[in-house]
Amino acid sequence: MRERGFVEPAMNGPVEQLVSCLSPGTVVTDPAIVANYRFDWARDPSAGVPAAVVRARSTADVQTVLRWASENRVPVVPRGAGSSLAGGASGVEGGVTLSLELMRDVSVDVGNRVAVAQAGAITADVKTAAAAHGLWYPPDPSSYEMSSIGGNAATNAGGLCCLKYGVTGDYVLGMEVVLADGRIIRLGGPRLKDVAGLPLLRLFVGSEGTLGVITELTLRLLPPPPAPATLTATFGSVEAAAEAVVAITRQVRPAMLELMDRVAINAVEDLIRMDLDRSSEALLLARSDAPGAAAADELAIIEAACQASGAREVYTTTEQDEGDAFIHARRSALPAMERLGVLLIEDVGVPVPALPELVRGIRGIAEARNTIISVIAHAGDGNTHPVIAYPPGDDEAEARARLAFGDVMMLAIELGGTITGEHGVGRLKTPWLLDQLGHDSMALTRQIKDALDPAHILNPGVMLPEEPSA
Amino acid sequence: MRERGFVEPAMNGPVEQLVSCLSPGTVVTDPAIVANYRFDWARDPSAGVPAAVVRARSTADVQTVLRWASENRVPVVPRGAGSSLAGGASGVEGGVTLSLELMRDVSVDVGNRVAVAQAGAITADVKTAAAAHGLWYPPDPSSYEMSSIGGNAATNAGGLCCLKYGVTGDYVLGMEVVLADGRIIRLGGPRLKDVAGLPLLRLFVGSEGTLGVITELTLRLLPPPPAPATLTATFGSVEAAAEAVVAITRQVRPAMLELMDRVAINAVEDLIRMDLDRSSEALLLARSDAPGAAAADELAIIEAACQASGAREVYTTTEQDEGDAFIHARRSALPAMERLGVLLIEDVGVPVPALPELVRGIRGIAEARNTIISVIAHAGDGNTHPVIAYPPGDDEAEARARLAFGDVMMLAIELGGTITGEHGVGRLKTPWLLDQLGHDSMALTRQIKDALDPAHILNPGVMLPEEPSA
Repeated sequence: MRERGFVEPAMNGPVEQLVSCLSPGTVVTDPAIVANYRFDWARDPSAGVPAAVVRARSTADVQTVLRWASENRVPVVPRGAGSSLAGGASGVEGGVTLSLELMRDVSVDVGNRVAVAQAGAITADVKTAAAAHGLWYPPDPSSYEMSSIGGNAATNAGGLCCLKYGVTGDYVLGMEVVLADGRIIRLGGPRLKDVAGLPLLRLFVGSEGTLGVITELTLRLLPPPPAPATLTATFGSVEAAAEAVVAITRQVRPAMLELMDRVAINAVEDLIRMDLDRSSEALLLARSDAPGAAAADELAIIEAACQASGAREVYTTTEQDEGDAFIHARRSALPAMERLGVLLIEDVGVPVPALPELVRGIRGIAEARNTIISVIAHAGDGNTHPVIAYPPGDDEAEARARLAFGDVMMLAIELGGTITGEHGVGRLKTPWLLDQLGHDSMALTRQIKDALDPAHILNPGVMLPEEPSA
Repeated sequence: MRERGFVEPAMNGPVEQLVSCLSPGTVVTDPAIVANYRFDWARDPSAGVPAAVVRARSTADVQTVLRWASENRVPVVPRGAGSSLAGGASGVEGGVTLSLELMRDVSVDVGNRVAVAQAGAITADVKTAAAAHGLWYPPDPSSYEMSSIGGNAATNAGGLCCLKYGVTGDYVLGMEVVLADGRIIRLGGPRLKDVAGLPLLRLFVGSEGTLGVITELTLRLLPPPPAPATLTATFGSVEAAAEAVVAITRQVRPAMLELMDRVAINAVEDLIRMDLDRSSEALLLARSDAPGAAAADELAIIEAACQASGAREVYTTTEQDEGDAFIHARRSALPAMERLGVLLIEDVGVPVPALPELVRGIRGIAEARNTIISVIAHAGDGNTHPVIAYPPGDDEAEARARLAFGDVMMLAIELGGTITGEHGVGRLKTPWLLDQLGHDSMALTRQIKDALDPAHILNPGVMLPEEPSA
């Protein structure tokens, strides 16, 4: 049996050794600062307080930390912007949180049409750098103005445009990654097709920091798409909107197809006043960036599908500003709902035809658990974000909300779906991963983890339940 | 040190045991039939003669073979249609070739817009089954009428449309795979986004049968694209055509962008008489399937780029039949060149801006090695197929051709490229894999191989050089 006993929180000896290996100020142990690295956006109450935070300035710093951590068997939590909604960057008691927030260089290689970004760069900065050269980095997680590109790659983050343009992993051509033992590996490069060797690059995309720490990414850029046209449609029920989504995606591949339910519509309207119809049960938001007249053709198909599913009102616009305002409304839904209480944010996905059934099932869960669940969704690819809200400080309501949180994941699994479409498993959803994957896939996961991180120092508790110390 | 001693070719005992575990006729030892499974399309002279061929009829058969092989430490070569151009399915002396050619069921789930195909299904049959339901399976390796879908997934096969529509892996949503020890694992499913757990599915796509045997695939289908418009352009030099490719891909993303040099043009013209200009040094073939009038706009940009790079003649057509005839000509290039002698088919890729330099370098190698090298290419993504030809039976010419084969791969590596863009490493290119990946990536490859196939029974000699028996 392999030993996996982690050192105790009070590990002054090893931490002092680490401090001596790095530039002054790189290792932070001031409790007031360290406290800021306990939680990520999931605010998982079981998050631990790290013994130290390392703010790496270079790949060499990352290597130093991982060598030291392997030697001393200290848990390491890699962290970009700390915007995980799944507890993927939340602290481990007595461990080290390895922050890449200072590593945020971005450069654009116009000839090869790639961006090369350090892992801590904010995704918006990558998009801006590409745009400055007339190029486009498509992935657009809702958090793109706050999340890091390294975190996006570590979770294989999706977003609004991935229905047509794919997810983060589709744009990762190369990476530099530091393994648990400190080896620095460069994978891939600015080549559009490369099948030489095992798909090692693919193994790290979406591995949530459990197999290595991504320090740099080479990202594919595209010529920018044509200006989009935008459609909104309101419905008398969420199911009707979901039926429309099924009908639309059978015929066309819009550049965006989002859904908000009544609770979300009203929360947004409270926050930013868009004149959304507060009485409708659901709003669909679709975009087409097909070139020229084809965009109107595509929106006509979408409109017809909405009408056939009983839409109350359909509105289209080719005004970019007006369309962008609707997208802004959709992106504001989560922050807007924070006024409703403490939020538990789901990320379940199902095959698109199962969307109406998922929506019905979620309503049943909300009733059974006596809790509020609002549904917003990247509906076009079946990825939904049911949001469970409860009043702060109400322990009973919180308990009911947490039960509902599990119920929704189990429902998605029953419908042939997934517990996470784009946020990752993190510490928050690890207890349900076995239910989705089954024992054999979990065993395979463990075999790969054991091969690459034999002491399980990297992001322990993510994907694989933590084992008691030996 | 782990034992990896394979059993001797004469392994009657174990083979008889295997025969008794499977239905009559499943295990073939008749030397006349077994001989047909020695080579794949790479016709690597070092291919071995298998002791037996198993024609699996079910996943359970595959499981039986792998359990038996693990127990008896017999090498297993998984084989679909045997169309590997890299020796990925060529025989191992005394081993078992596990053929999936009888497992070729294909069904289409219209609601979920997926095809479910057994691994031995021919790729064309997947495309036909999808089309029968008004849907489209995009990947189109040149071999799609002969190659198997399992082999396509095992190599992450590309093709002509992948410049715009991606490679096989982009359409693999789920799979059933049998591990070396016989465990059957189901990964993914008909979900468009799913990040639950390590990206195990991605690890098997492109693993060339070295980590497991894929038995079934769930494949994403799309609505069919608009009818394409086609452009051909002739050039006075291959470099000029390559320059045009660089200029085109800076501005648009065509549905196809292929290149043939003078040798290929003339070989095709000898075979099928298309009235191609035999005197031009290069032909570019581009397609746009942008909807409506946008196709003409896209071809106009492509035409302008060709003219600016000194094209001799540019021709465009919206006649589908005429366009298809040009595509047929391009697809016929490899078979047409078989008249030139014995062929060694390269698959090197470089970043697109390095294409002209690659083309120049290849000409230099042809001169230095006194051999014929013709270049055909999926030019738009930098993936080229230099074809080296030598007269059959001429040992000296063959030796020079084999040296040139290595030279071209080393040139691609020097230019920041890859030794294989879509055919895979196979046994043929394994000696050069270290040159591309470096020691650390090879060590990582070995760690994963050891974790999943500790006795190295699966496709030995592919990606990792065979070790001498213990």
